[in-house]
This record gives sequence, C-alpha cells and structure tokens, in this order.
Amino acid sequence: MKIAVLGTGMVGETLASKLVALGHEVKMGSRTANNEKAVAWAKKAGAKASQGTFADAAAFGEFLFNCTLGSGSLDALSAAGAQNLQGKILLDTSNPLDFSKGMPPSLFVPSNDSLGERIQRAFPDLKVVKTLNTINANVMVEPSRIPGEHAVFVSGNDAEAKRQVKELLTGGFGWKQVIDLGDITTSRGTEAYLMLWIRLWGALGTPDFNISIAKKG
Amino acid sequence: MKIAVLGTGMVGETLASKLVALGHEVKMGSRTANNEKAVAWAKKAGAKASQGTFADAAAFGEFLFNCTLGSGSLDALSAAGAQNLQGKILLDTSNPLDFSKGMPPSLFVPSNDSLGERIQRAFPDLKVVKTLNTINANVMVEPSRIPGEHAVFVSGNDAEAKRQVKELLTGGFGWKQVIDLGDITTSRGTEAYLMLWIRLWGALGTPDFNISIAKKG
Repeated sequence: MKIAVLGTGMVGETLASKLVALGHEVKMGSRTANNEKAVAWAKKAGAKASQGTFADAAAFGEFLFNCTLGSGSLDALSAAGAQNLQGKILLDTSNPLDFSKGMPPSLFVPSNDSLGERIQRAFPDLKVVKTLNTINANVMVEPSRIPGEHAVFVSGNDAEAKRQVKELLTGGFGWKQVIDLGDITTSRGTEAYLMLWIRLWGALGTPDFNISIAKKG
Repeated sequence: MKIAVLGTGMVGETLASKLVALGHEVKMGSRTANNEKAVAWAKKAGAKASQGTFADAAAFGEFLFNCTLGSGSLDALSAAGAQNLQGKILLDTSNPLDFSKGMPPSLFVPSNDSLGERIQRAFPDLKVVKTLNTINANVMVEPSRIPGEHAVFVSGNDAEAKRQVKELLTGGFGWKQVIDLGDITTSRGTEAYLMLWIRLWGALGTPDFNISIAKKG
C-alpha cells in the first residue's frame, strides 16, 4: 500500500520505518521539500521510502498517518491540501499537548472537545481514526516489548476506516487488545488520558509502559 | 479510628459501610442533620455508625473522606468548617465532572488545574490525598472483584498522609498496586483519566473494570 506519514519527529520516523519494514511504500511529508530529517530517513530506509512536502506525501498516499505535533496538525493538513485528503483514511496519532507554560504540558483543547474532532470538523471528507496516541513511539510499533495483553484504542466515525486501521494494528503491528471506544468524540478520552500518562512516566521512570484493561469476569 | 465520610451518595455509602466493617467508628456527614439517606444508612450499619451535618462529621473524624459530588465538594468542606479540618487527612475521591451539558460529562477544571488542588488551596492546613477517584465505588472497597493486580493512584503533598492512606488501601481495602504519582498537582492526571473511564464504561458495557500498568521488564 502507498502510505503518507506526515511528520519527521520520533513518532513519524518510527512509524514510517515500521511501515517500510512491513512492505509498504512510504512517503514522509514535512513543511518543506528536502527537510533534513526526512531526507536522512528516506536514505536510510531504502527503496520503498521517499520524502516530500505535506502535499507531496498526501497526494502519494492512499492511507495517511498524522504524526505531527498536535499544535501543528491542522496547519500540516491544510498544507497537505483538502483535495489530497478527500475520502482517505487518516490514522491520527496526535495529542493536543500545550508546552507553552513548560513541563508538564496541559491540553490546548477543553474537555468538551478534542483535536481528533477539530481535524474531523476541518476536513469533513477525511476519515479520521484517532489511535496510538496513548503510548510511546517504540510501543506503538512493537507492543510485544511490554508484557501482557495491554490495550490500544480507536475512535472514529467511519466503521470501515476503523476496520482497516484495526487490521493494520493487529496484523501489521501485533496489537492484541484493540478497543473501539466509539465515534471521533471519544478522542476526548484518550487525549485527556495523556495527563495521566505523563505522570505515570514520571512515577515509573520509563515511557516503556502501557495500560491494560482488567474487567470483572 | 474515628472517621468522617462526607457525602451520602453511592460512594459515601459504600465507603462508610466498608469502614464500619473494618471496625472503625464512622459518622456520615451531609448538608442537613437527619438527612434521610444518612439516617437510613446509620440505622442499617449498626452501633459504630452515626450521622450528622458536615460540621458534625468533620469534628468527629480524625480521618476524613470526601465522597461528595465534585461540584459540591468545596461547599461541603466550607460547611464542615476550616477549624474542624485543620491538620487532618482528607482522602479525596471526588472528580470535577460537569454534567451541565448532559452526558457524557466534561470537566469543570481546565487541564492546568484540578479539583484536588482547588481543595488543597482552599484549605492549606488540610492534608489532601486524592485517591480512589479512578474506579467505581464497588471496586474501591473490593478490588478483588476484578482479576489481576490492577492499579489505584495517590496524589498529595504530605508524605506521612500518603503513607497512612496507602496503609488503609492495602491493609484495609486489599489494594495490591498503589502508585504514588507525586504531589497534589498530579490529581490532574487521575481526574482527566475520567474522560477515558467514561468511554471505557460505554465500550465495555460495565463499570466493573480497572486499568493495570504493564511495564517493560
């Protein structure tokens, strides 16, 4: 499959590399053509890897990953161009983290909204599926580094888009517990959870953790 | 020990009953003396149970539980009276849930504040320990109804107060995984998690669940 990965940070690079390893053709997109990190990644990742602007990547991809910082996601998707997004699935890993007042961050959306919804409202023809935003990049693509059947969540309005995302999460990345929370408004839950995730990182001393759901039998 | 339970709802009743069962003397407090639910509870719970106003209960208790609705917690503690709170430990189970726009609720505090902090700021001499706010009442007092070593969190500024709360959680209620997140500002994490908890309740179809922390070995 042809996949666009928007963003050149740790999440973008980790996901793009994993997708290439799974046999996909991946174009990494950034604000400018020939972004230094994107060029270095494409060189390292081999023949199936390429890079370009957000618009180049979105035009190339049949399936899109948003791996930009939450504060830049709407701008990145605007730069990608609505015509390049139309009807496509966007696997959205972003979180609305506000670092403007230092660490730890707060959220720049109120608790009756979410970045997932803002993206969906701005691009109504895009099939936004919020997922993977509750774990560290390394865990996203290799859940087996954490013992047990810990959970990843999906939120989105389009059932078929969620099915395809779940297939990639389970068959591609090896996730065993994928919990469908409901429509895109349920992004409020996983984005708000980051406020706990950050404190757990501090308390546990490592970002290599996740939660699993224990339920009465 | 003499314990005050502020609040007559499901959480207050469940905790008060458990504390009596553990051998403590418990006074349930509410806005008015002889609140119907408090009287019925005290009658049912036996000789170690009593009821009164918030001030009656707070004056009686050496150790206080806040089980009021988040929207009423500051008023309840004001009614209890700062002189009855001074130097005592408040185990705070409340969440800043805003039901004013219907279901599901949002939070009435922004993500750079928490109800735990608001209570601590309003009553600086009270030793606020936020805990048990991430699970259903039945699970709070009987963690073994959920399989596995799932987690409960504590947040607070006073190390000795947290030690005493942890002792009650482990020795009294049977909790096995108690995670100290840090000072009272870490209440932001567990309170925000409610936004995910509510959606998990919907997705799982039961409030009888909890999260456990899976960590790289």
